Amino acid sequence: MINDKNLAQIDGKTTLIGLLASPIGHSMTPAMHNLGYTISGLNYAYLAFDVGREGLQASVEGMKALGAAGFNVSMPNKIAIMQYVDELDDSARLARASNTVVHKDGKLIGYNTDGLGYVMNLKEHGVPLDGIKVTLVGSGGVAAPIAIQLVQSGIKELSVFARQDSLFANAEDNVSFINREMKEYGVTANVFPFEDKDALRKEISESAILTNATSLGMKPHDDSSILGDMLDVLRDNLIVSDVVYNPVKTKLLAQAEAAGAVPINGLGMVLWQGALAYKLFTGEEMPVEQIREMMFGSK
Amino acid sequence: MINDKNLAQIDGKTTLIGLLASPIGHSMTPAMHNLGYTISGLNYAYLAFDVGREGLQASVEGMKALGAAGFNVSMPNKIAIMQYVDELDDSARLARASNTVVHKDGKLIGYNTDGLGYVMNLKEHGVPLDGIKVTLVGSGGVAAPIAIQLVQSGIKELSVFARQDSLFANAEDNVSFINREMKEYGVTANVFPFEDKDALRKEISESAILTNATSLGMKPHDDSSILGDMLDVLRDNLIVSDVVYNPVKTKLLAQAEAAGAVPINGLGMVLWQGALAYKLFTGEEMPVEQIREMMFGSK
Repeated sequence: MINDKNLAQIDGKTTLIGLLASPIGHSMTPAMHNLGYTISGLNYAYLAFDVGREGLQASVEGMKALGAAGFNVSMPNKIAIMQYVDELDDSARLARASNTVVHKDGKLIGYNTDGLGYVMNLKEHGVPLDGIKVTLVGSGGVAAPIAIQLVQSGIKELSVFARQDSLFANAEDNVSFINREMKEYGVTANVFPFEDKDALRKEISESAILTNATSLGMKPHDDSSILGDMLDVLRDNLIVSDVVYNPVKTKLLAQAEAAGAVPINGLGMVLWQGALAYKLFTGEEMPVEQIREMMFGSK
Repeated sequence: MINDKNLAQIDGKTTLIGLLASPIGHSMTPAMHNLGYTISGLNYAYLAFDVGREGLQASVEGMKALGAAGFNVSMPNKIAIMQYVDELDDSARLARASNTVVHKDGKLIGYNTDGLGYVMNLKEHGVPLDGIKVTLVGSGGVAAPIAIQLVQSGIKELSVFARQDSLFANAEDNVSFINREMKEYGVTANVFPFEDKDALRKEISESAILTNATSLGMKPHDDSSILGDMLDVLRDNLIVSDVVYNPVKTKLLAQAEAAGAVPINGLGMVLWQGALAYKLFTGEEMPVEQIREMMFGSK
């Protein structure tokens, strides 16, 4: 009597997964996960919730009480979320930030998939990490996990540049954490003020990779680049990697391309950090290639 | 670059609506609402959450913090929910139970659409209510709102039958509430133990409508009927109405049909209480006829 073919996909057994962030209107994350569930026939629904610092605790307790399988968090909640979870995976503990919380056996477990997602994207582009030096610009919620994961992925030196504002102390903390608590990886980490252009020029010249982990260049500020007009630092074997994916070709990447350097855009990191979260939430592999093709029109 | 046609329907702006009840696996409510959103192109997603008494408060606070447009509640939460809302509409205040909570301007407002949904279904079937007597069996979460709405809809007498268990006091309370607090409607309400078969026989013989508002006859107990084998009470002008809709033709309704009485199944009430909630949540009319046809295969 009930004609299933005509019903919307969601039924009484659909499990919620969500994103807690603010703002969320332009996030591609719901589309990516829901497309994966549709392709794979999994009975989940991924919704974005506009939740800032104020509503975070009630939202987290709510997601738990509602039986959600888990949720991602993004700005401004990546650090604050850690006080509301029951356990921290090493990926979040070391990065001191979490973007993925799994609800399992009545417990909330905080993970961080940003760093590994970033490194998986580099590896997919064939970038060798062993023994190299990286210049990383940024001190926000995504810079720390990237730094921590790079340290665990074979590099030998990391130079972090951060603006001398209230977040500079974060960058100093991260660097001293790497030098002090992650000694076994044998990586030397340095921190510089972003305002010191001579230091930036020198560190980039010694690095195989320049990474933008700030939001500079993101719409609506897409006429900005961490390099400004300091284009002489670009050379043909420099890999220039951006975490910004909106626009896909940021001003920084356009500058890199024009100078013959090797640009790597932020879409791959979005896909891979999402694929890692997808696996943690559902236990299944995200159909990365199909999603890449359907959402971004490219293989 | 992003091909919207290929994406799942849910995006970063989809608003959550939900059902808080336990159990929820077989509820038709999510399918009904989601089908409506799909037909009308509204950006909402309706999910069912298995929430009992214990997780209710955190779930309610969570739905609020997550920015849900509202939620339905069903057993066992229809009475408990009232302590967690900010305001009660008359429909919930009089029924002393709420099945629909609207989140508006930062407040949660409790409504009850069960009673009006029940009466709308009777009216759709052309049942005249003015001046009639109704025999109503049940003392649970749906019996009270039906009783209250019938009193407001023109009937002159109501006889409530309830089992002499822990819920019998509810039925007594409802009846004395109607006689004491709703005097202006001029309805006489009576209460009897369901075990008193002589009283049941007499009240039915004086009634135009016999209503089952218990779960007797619901799967897996679909071999039960409030009438048992007391089939002599059925007559050709008696309207026999059931709130149970699974199965659609309950044993009670089959008995009524076989005796030439007028059976009215529970699907209409599900549709109309849902349509009232849909309007409260979204501000839009639910496409009732299309949903009826697509979900139930009939106009």
